[in-house]
Amino acid sequence: MMSSPEDSGGGSGGKGRGEFGLIAELFAPLAIGHPGALHLKDDAAILSLPKGYRLVATTDAVVAGVHFLPDDPPDLVAKKAVRVNLSDVAAMGAEPMGILVAACFPKEGGEAWIEAFARGLSEDVHAYNCPVLGGDTVATPGPATITVTALGCAPAGGELRRDGAKEGDVLMVTGTLGDAALGLKVCRGDPALAGLSETHKAFLMDRYRLPRPRVSFGPVLSGMARSCLDVSDGLIGDLKHICENSHLGAEVDLEALPLSDAARAALDAAPVLLGSVLCGGDDYELLFTLPEERVEQVRAAAVRCGLTATPIGRMVAGSEVFVRRGAGPAEPFAGGTSWSHY
Amino acid sequence: MMSSPEDSGGGSGGKGRGEFGLIAELFAPLAIGHPGALHLKDDAAILSLPKGYRLVATTDAVVAGVHFLPDDPPDLVAKKAVRVNLSDVAAMGAEPMGILVAACFPKEGGEAWIEAFARGLSEDVHAYNCPVLGGDTVATPGPATITVTALGCAPAGGELRRDGAKEGDVLMVTGTLGDAALGLKVCRGDPALAGLSETHKAFLMDRYRLPRPRVSFGPVLSGMARSCLDVSDGLIGDLKHICENSHLGAEVDLEALPLSDAARAALDAAPVLLGSVLCGGDDYELLFTLPEERVEQVRAAAVRCGLTATPIGRMVAGSEVFVRRGAGPAEPFAGGTSWSHY
Repeated sequence: MMSSPEDSGGGSGGKGRGEFGLIAELFAPLAIGHPGALHLKDDAAILSLPKGYRLVATTDAVVAGVHFLPDDPPDLVAKKAVRVNLSDVAAMGAEPMGILVAACFPKEGGEAWIEAFARGLSEDVHAYNCPVLGGDTVATPGPATITVTALGCAPAGGELRRDGAKEGDVLMVTGTLGDAALGLKVCRGDPALAGLSETHKAFLMDRYRLPRPRVSFGPVLSGMARSCLDVSDGLIGDLKHICENSHLGAEVDLEALPLSDAARAALDAAPVLLGSVLCGGDDYELLFTLPEERVEQVRAAAVRCGLTATPIGRMVAGSEVFVRRGAGPAEPFAGGTSWSHY
Repeated sequence: MMSSPEDSGGGSGGKGRGEFGLIAELFAPLAIGHPGALHLKDDAAILSLPKGYRLVATTDAVVAGVHFLPDDPPDLVAKKAVRVNLSDVAAMGAEPMGILVAACFPKEGGEAWIEAFARGLSEDVHAYNCPVLGGDTVATPGPATITVTALGCAPAGGELRRDGAKEGDVLMVTGTLGDAALGLKVCRGDPALAGLSETHKAFLMDRYRLPRPRVSFGPVLSGMARSCLDVSDGLIGDLKHICENSHLGAEVDLEALPLSDAARAALDAAPVLLGSVLCGGDDYELLFTLPEERVEQVRAAAVRCGLTATPIGRMVAGSEVFVRRGAGPAEPFAGGTSWSHY
């Protein structure tokens, strides 16, 4: 049930009817007519799964001061909370069906914060055709804390897991890498990026603030890729998840990494930033493996989704991640800050 | 994915591997072998629905200082977070399939808090045979904030909604009413309850601290009741939800209200506490309506679940809630604090 902020000490009584009215007014339309949302007035939502499909479910919290800055615009906070979850759904090869939103709003933010938050939520709910099916709102004494649960569906057996990679699989990634991590550095005023053009700075900051979950492409990969995840912790860190779960190693060609013009300009100015490209998080691109013979088909499918998909390496025997430059020798990825010599 | 607490300012990198190890060790077993949990290592969980069933999904957050006291035992906090959600699933007539847990742990709580929390979670996961299918953990600068999403399934068409009541339906409730609200008063040292025996005080406090979701009985009601919800906001408040959604009024017989010995002792000492019984929250009993001819069948079914189910009134035309004492005249429920004259 989408209930009102509770301001009592123990959850007993004490509902503010004014707030309740506001919440109901702002959130009820976010069901965008899904009958199973029951107008956000019941104990739970009801959903059917298409025949032959399985449910995919994921939850992620974003917290002010941890995942976003306390003075970030509330509409962007809403979108970030939604999109990091939709990215997880896409990474399973699933289509989103709807979200549940548990929003803990700080009392001092007032109605304006909640209204802007709801506006951002509304824009994404429509953009991704992904209704709010249920939720909860609480007035918290702490920082804004938004937990979104995303529900999706994938053809049974077509789910993309982390443990399905095979030796020899080509490793591919959508879009470009490192923009978000560099964008965070721009937001923080890192001197290494001071020389970038304003256009490049703006591009990178936007990529940090607003993830682009690959919701159309994820389901396309179902049945074509053998393993997949979204790059949220950084390329190397997430690649290690595929390696560990698939009991394999991987080799990454640093010359093949897809970079935006802005990231390339940043690396030209400060090659040390390669570390951010390899290990920085928040890209929300899909990293996946597949047999070589499917690479061109997947590349073409990505283009139809308005994306690029780039081969960046290969799964190999072992358990380590190696990096090389083109035809150069492969070296174990050293981690820490020592990657700067690559 | 059950990820580690992030301590960076922007979510980029900075995972504490020590914490990650702790979280993985504590939470992975909570999947209790459900294959769809993917060992809590993937982007999302995968679930099948039994044929002919629909998914029921609900989410609720509990926040330290709002829904529980900051020094409440962490294992009880975990259980409360789980149970308020399982109660919502039961109120839909559904069986629980699993939960997703987004836990924001305050840094100052340390590992001991997290371990005790995980222990409580583990006990309930086993008690309700309800695996943790996924989640997220965050180190928050604010109060402990636990968001649980519960997933359940109900036979298609057998879901119990708030809008299905019919005029003339008998209104029934499981268990006893008001114990939790009175328990909160005991916790707070309310002088009106000072004269209660220690046994009664302990009983009431326990009812406040630890909800008993009616998980076995909810699915039994599917196909028998016409509308249902769980009493979380208080009898009258929640009854009004059924009234509003079903476009009906209701009549409650105050003499029929099921009361525990402890609540009866409290009311004998201070009749004014009837207000807490009628309007206090956190009972987590099921309030439901059904045709008169099914009352005895449902009563017997409740007994088989180790519960009582008590008729307390009837759905009537109109939109208001009326109260009466036995065969006495029905009066509109006055609300506020003026119920004390009933």
